[in-house]
Amino acid sequence: MTDLYPENKRIQNYLFNIFRSISEKYGYEEIEPPILESAEIYKKSGQEIPEQMYSFKDKSSRLLALRPETTPSIARMINNKSLSLPIKWFSISRCFRYEREQAGRAREFDQFNLDMIGSTSMQSDAEVIKTLVEILKSLKLTKKDFFIRISNRKLIDDLLKSINITNIKQVSQLIDKKDKLSEKDFILSLKDLDLNNKQIKDLQKIINISSLDKIKIESKGLTELKELFSYLKLYNILDYCKLDLSIMRGFDYYTSTVFEAFDTKKQFRAIAGGGRYDNLASFPGVGYGFGDRVILLLLKIPELEKQVDYYIAPVNKKIIPKAIQIAEKLRKNSTVELDLLNRNLSKQIKYASLITNNLIIVGEKDLKDKKITLRDLKTGKEKKILISKL
Amino acid sequence: MTDLYPENKRIQNYLFNIFRSISEKYGYEEIEPPILESAEIYKKSGQEIPEQMYSFKDKSSRLLALRPETTPSIARMINNKSLSLPIKWFSISRCFRYEREQAGRAREFDQFNLDMIGSTSMQSDAEVIKTLVEILKSLKLTKKDFFIRISNRKLIDDLLKSINITNIKQVSQLIDKKDKLSEKDFILSLKDLDLNNKQIKDLQKIINISSLDKIKIESKGLTELKELFSYLKLYNILDYCKLDLSIMRGFDYYTSTVFEAFDTKKQFRAIAGGGRYDNLASFPGVGYGFGDRVILLLLKIPELEKQVDYYIAPVNKKIIPKAIQIAEKLRKNSTVELDLLNRNLSKQIKYASLITNNLIIVGEKDLKDKKITLRDLKTGKEKKILISKL
Repeated sequence: MTDLYPENKRIQNYLFNIFRSISEKYGYEEIEPPILESAEIYKKSGQEIPEQMYSFKDKSSRLLALRPETTPSIARMINNKSLSLPIKWFSISRCFRYEREQAGRAREFDQFNLDMIGSTSMQSDAEVIKTLVEILKSLKLTKKDFFIRISNRKLIDDLLKSINITNIKQVSQLIDKKDKLSEKDFILSLKDLDLNNKQIKDLQKIINISSLDKIKIESKGLTELKELFSYLKLYNILDYCKLDLSIMRGFDYYTSTVFEAFDTKKQFRAIAGGGRYDNLASFPGVGYGFGDRVILLLLKIPELEKQVDYYIAPVNKKIIPKAIQIAEKLRKNSTVELDLLNRNLSKQIKYASLITNNLIIVGEKDLKDKKITLRDLKTGKEKKILISKL
Repeated sequence: MTDLYPENKRIQNYLFNIFRSISEKYGYEEIEPPILESAEIYKKSGQEIPEQMYSFKDKSSRLLALRPETTPSIARMINNKSLSLPIKWFSISRCFRYEREQAGRAREFDQFNLDMIGSTSMQSDAEVIKTLVEILKSLKLTKKDFFIRISNRKLIDDLLKSINITNIKQVSQLIDKKDKLSEKDFILSLKDLDLNNKQIKDLQKIINISSLDKIKIESKGLTELKELFSYLKLYNILDYCKLDLSIMRGFDYYTSTVFEAFDTKKQFRAIAGGGRYDNLASFPGVGYGFGDRVILLLLKIPELEKQVDYYIAPVNKKIIPKAIQIAEKLRKNSTVELDLLNRNLSKQIKYASLITNNLIIVGEKDLKDKKITLRDLKTGKEKKILISKL
């Protein structure tokens, strides 16, 4: 991670506050697993993640990893304690991946996770996706800016079987990388996986299916997906959601629903992604991870400036004791900065105008009347106020 | 770190919110350096910290460390960017130390830091100590519970020189460990450092000095400390502060004021500690670190329970679409949990009574009148409300 100076930390806090407030609206509670985990819990995290993990042995020779993603820790937390259902959790956790740094990627980043554990009903999947849409809407993004691609692992497996593909895992991994390959390279790679021309043609039809009504095979995944879309309609977010059977998600632990949020222009990697994992923990669950890197690129929030309610300027060193008293009084209900650099008044005013509209000048003459001067730095208007009335 | 389940994360968030609100009252802004740092920046972090550091080589053979403390990162951030003064920063950052785990210690913990950079005036040191006192007071601790021990590195150095001690660094390190040693072992160790009986007697007098007026040597540190105490009086916190020349702080980068907050009963390690570091960054600075472990032991906050504004109970599966609509409507301004487990009504009510006072029952008969039943779970009283009036 790069250093977050105040102007960047303010933007991150703005994002985190939205994560927190939407999660709480839906009855989710914050948790936090540790950053240092036993490396072995990431065995089901697909191909890429274990390769990108920072891992090392500690002094007692245990192989530790810096958390590359949060779901395995959540599964461990669920298994380690007797908890009553439903478990509705969210977390904002630092994650680490050793990969080439570029726009939207960083080796150290923060990830928001939201998980609903204890139900196999597609209503849970819909609620979870709804919170994702609500977060993106709260960030002032519209359906012109983003959409959610949705698929189901069971359905794609059944569809691949229906065209007699046997090496389903390899083919799925290839479909997952499809967007990074040219059409030609994709077909060549499918041939390398022993698909014949008919299978390749059928496969291309499958991953381009845009409506569930066009699927004629029997599949539990199809039933689930139809149910999910009916709930998405009830949650009033169908406009943001799109069937896309080419969505795989890299993780091996997803068993049913999978989904990814993308920017409409497809300029960036996935904004967020998740799915249902019915075998990872002792209860079935569904959830997603949402990194802070891509979304911050997409938002382009203008820099927020430091702001305090009052700046207090003592006109000379002798006044400091009184200025401290006034500052402390105002701090009961306000944010207040008091000069600590012994600057002259004009330098103080220049600085104050960067951080507040309300300048309090503490001068000797005013003090005799038990007053201060409050200057509105926007209008330049001044008034005298009794210190006892502050 | 142990896993933070919701009941613990709530307490941590309560603590973090106090850190944030007091810092902001005094015009400090939040920043965040990365967790993974180059190991070499901790060379001035004293004896213990480099030994307790988690460090490892990354794939390009750089020696990295998991941040054991935050001050060196803050100094780096100040040196890396052209910033205008004053720099008033705070941070809440995960730190790692490989040490024996016991009450008040953990290998992974969160540390609050507050720093004021750009001034050598003792008013800064006083303001920084004031924020520490305000945080402890906001946590409902009183002067019966904690106090701040304050010293000055220059003064103790001058005092040791005045009794002809030459190996000042070693003697200081020993004084730092004094509380962990018996009186007898302390004296033996002083003898090992070649102090004669007269020096040992004089040294014991020095570290027991309780009033600055009793010090008769010339020392810049004495002037600073007198000035600091006069500001602590202006900030109205003299009652919480105590001169204690045995306070050293382990870090080599402190140059002047040093201070530590302790519980009055001295049951625990320091709650927080800090000081002035005029040579660590390109500007003079003063600040402190405040770990979350000791304070959480000291507070013994009762567990806070999950609370939502409303729980919505559909009486059967057919009602779910309408229940979703009602939940979404209420979520505009409230936190709302809706059953996702298809539980029967009595199970739902049992669960709801754990998390809210307001139960909304959505039943078929009510719906015909476009109403719901709102039950107050404390009093048991019910009323029918038009859905349009929710």
